[in-house]
Amino acid sequence: MNASIITIGDEILIGQIIDTNSAWMAQQLNLLGIPVRKIITCSDGETDILSALSEASSISELILITGGLGPTKDDITKQALATYFGVDLEFSEETYQQIKFLINKYNLKMTTGLREQSYMPNNAQLLVNKMGSAPGMWFDFNDKVFVSMPGVPYEMKYLMKAEVLPRLKVQFDLPAIYHKTILTSGMGESGIADKLENIEASLPPNIKLAYLPGVAQVRLRLTGRGNDEIKLRESVESIAQEIIAKLGVEIVYGHGEGSLSEALLTLLNEKKIKLATAESCTGGLVGHLLTSIPGASNSYVGGIIAYSNRIKERRLGVRPETLKSHGAVSKETVFEMAKGVIKHFEANVGIAISGIAGPGGGTPDKPVGTTWIAVANETHYYTQKLTLEGNRILNIKYSANAALRAARQFILKQYGNETDESP
Amino acid sequence: MNASIITIGDEILIGQIIDTNSAWMAQQLNLLGIPVRKIITCSDGETDILSALSEASSISELILITGGLGPTKDDITKQALATYFGVDLEFSEETYQQIKFLINKYNLKMTTGLREQSYMPNNAQLLVNKMGSAPGMWFDFNDKVFVSMPGVPYEMKYLMKAEVLPRLKVQFDLPAIYHKTILTSGMGESGIADKLENIEASLPPNIKLAYLPGVAQVRLRLTGRGNDEIKLRESVESIAQEIIAKLGVEIVYGHGEGSLSEALLTLLNEKKIKLATAESCTGGLVGHLLTSIPGASNSYVGGIIAYSNRIKERRLGVRPETLKSHGAVSKETVFEMAKGVIKHFEANVGIAISGIAGPGGGTPDKPVGTTWIAVANETHYYTQKLTLEGNRILNIKYSANAALRAARQFILKQYGNETDESP
Repeated sequence: MNASIITIGDEILIGQIIDTNSAWMAQQLNLLGIPVRKIITCSDGETDILSALSEASSISELILITGGLGPTKDDITKQALATYFGVDLEFSEETYQQIKFLINKYNLKMTTGLREQSYMPNNAQLLVNKMGSAPGMWFDFNDKVFVSMPGVPYEMKYLMKAEVLPRLKVQFDLPAIYHKTILTSGMGESGIADKLENIEASLPPNIKLAYLPGVAQVRLRLTGRGNDEIKLRESVESIAQEIIAKLGVEIVYGHGEGSLSEALLTLLNEKKIKLATAESCTGGLVGHLLTSIPGASNSYVGGIIAYSNRIKERRLGVRPETLKSHGAVSKETVFEMAKGVIKHFEANVGIAISGIAGPGGGTPDKPVGTTWIAVANETHYYTQKLTLEGNRILNIKYSANAALRAARQFILKQYGNETDESP
Repeated sequence: MNASIITIGDEILIGQIIDTNSAWMAQQLNLLGIPVRKIITCSDGETDILSALSEASSISELILITGGLGPTKDDITKQALATYFGVDLEFSEETYQQIKFLINKYNLKMTTGLREQSYMPNNAQLLVNKMGSAPGMWFDFNDKVFVSMPGVPYEMKYLMKAEVLPRLKVQFDLPAIYHKTILTSGMGESGIADKLENIEASLPPNIKLAYLPGVAQVRLRLTGRGNDEIKLRESVESIAQEIIAKLGVEIVYGHGEGSLSEALLTLLNEKKIKLATAESCTGGLVGHLLTSIPGASNSYVGGIIAYSNRIKERRLGVRPETLKSHGAVSKETVFEMAKGVIKHFEANVGIAISGIAGPGGGTPDKPVGTTWIAVANETHYYTQKLTLEGNRILNIKYSANAALRAARQFILKQYGNETDESP
């Protein structure tokens, strides 16, 4: 069996909002072992909704629908569903009471639009929505299941968790599915593909490997399908171990949903290392990536955004001679920045980044996209030069991620590492 | 005429990545006056791609396709397109040379996968991709246009801007359309709607006003459609002026694609003010938002990420008594942080932010979501308390944007302002 998702709403088709609902629903369905065959976004027009319903039900046994259940005139999902099922809309006392309850709770006024939300296709099983006025609706129709939910993300998520997913588990006899995502940084997609050629060639037919490239990183996703859940998990995990062994722990920084900053913080925490950052061209992004992770304060003490040369001298102790002879974007400057931030922030390890993000500021010698990274502790240091080709934002993001990766590799090397590779 | 968008990739159907490409493409098409009828996300399977192509071309004259052009085995978009058009794949010397150029530039090795990227359906017009190895492809087929682009967002955006949008303008006879987006911060959607009630009620039928809520800001987009381009522009611009006058310059911070950080930097530049930041809970995000704008170094000198209390004392001079009696998240602490960063960074104006982003760290007195902001110069200061309700990431983003807005309002008030409203 498989599912299709229909998201209804002109606001998606004009690009006003990004459809995050379907990715979340797809994740949840996949975790249950229901693959998603197709996602369709259509307008609030009845013809388009009917055609999406026909298409989806021609390939899927489960059709999840979001959007178009609001109190305004452009929301016509219920009418379209009634037409599709060949039924009438009927007043639902249960829904009316829920709407009245919410209206009292939030001191609102009953409007015609809100009252009309109480009318439902008469074959709907109502799913109580504790987060809003429009209930979810479950339909059994022609041996298929249709579920309609509001498009507001937290209302949809509530209904999925509290009502839809538990019912799906009961209603369908589901095959086993197992995903494993391996997170890598420091090697490009095609370099990885070359290294994994033999492993890929000998994958069993029920296990697939996908490459998901990102900024300064590539995620590798193994997906296995089968009947024996325990065997499936074993074979996916064993292939994952082969891949990790082949690429090495300095390239593989984690698995699942983790980020580079999370992997670095975990490592810092394990080794009881305090980290500080001295950022020039990344302007605070490394700090932001680290502090986006809950608990960052255990290992990250803070840092300096040393955007001007004067600040590099005054607040980090970079020597004026260094800036004069080598420039702000140089190995020598990032080295002194990293050393300075360790000292002034009383940290064990310092990261420093200085670069020319663009569009201005490039020279023939140091074109836009030149970035220097340094990672240092009291006794050792590592520096790296990047030559980037993106726009300003991309150069900044790439530099920040490369700095996080360099810091992780430096710490693995200096504070204990499972491999022999140098950072 | 209208367009459909097809995004290809199992990674979207399992919910591993959120499809942001189609929202961006839909925006761009709408700005050109091409409405989007449907967005289809399908798997990397040939049957599914062929069926999506048939569906899209049955309702649209323009079909934009992203994804499935990478060098790995799971990328089969080109084969599917060749089957759909009934043509063969042919070696493209032009593409091969571009790949070789990129490989030399980045010191990579030629792989089988990369070499295979040089094969193209023989009816493709190649669109040079300066951001990666897979070119875009333009097909004229049965009086419809099909465009295939890589799924990597910056590659797709480059191709759209440099190649696809200019060609669409030439190829299709499009009606006149004029957009004006007014950027606001500091007033909620319903507050704005109340203020604009009369203006909205008297809009001519060919001009529409849309509310686009964001994090700590609301964008207002006027869209006019018609035949007389000059008149259309005049009437949209005149309504925009009415709206700006009604809301005031402290709420309206710009128009078009601008950001709050850009508006603040422009103002700082005009007034020749040097700004520094002292960030705790936002961990560098304010610095990152400012330094994402080219030329930020003219007005932004840098700042401190004072994540630990020790750093707040040592590097910003916040008094231990202040931290002890009022806590790190307090009016008194952010005031001293702002004063400290002005002094230590030799700036005219300082922004300070301290808050509890969550999920941990909240107390009954100061729950998760409590944030204090201060903006100060030598003689004046402004503080604000926020009580936020989002998750960690959202609280951080909201706090950073609110701080940028507060700084802009402070500067308008202290250094010359066109209105009387206080920040």
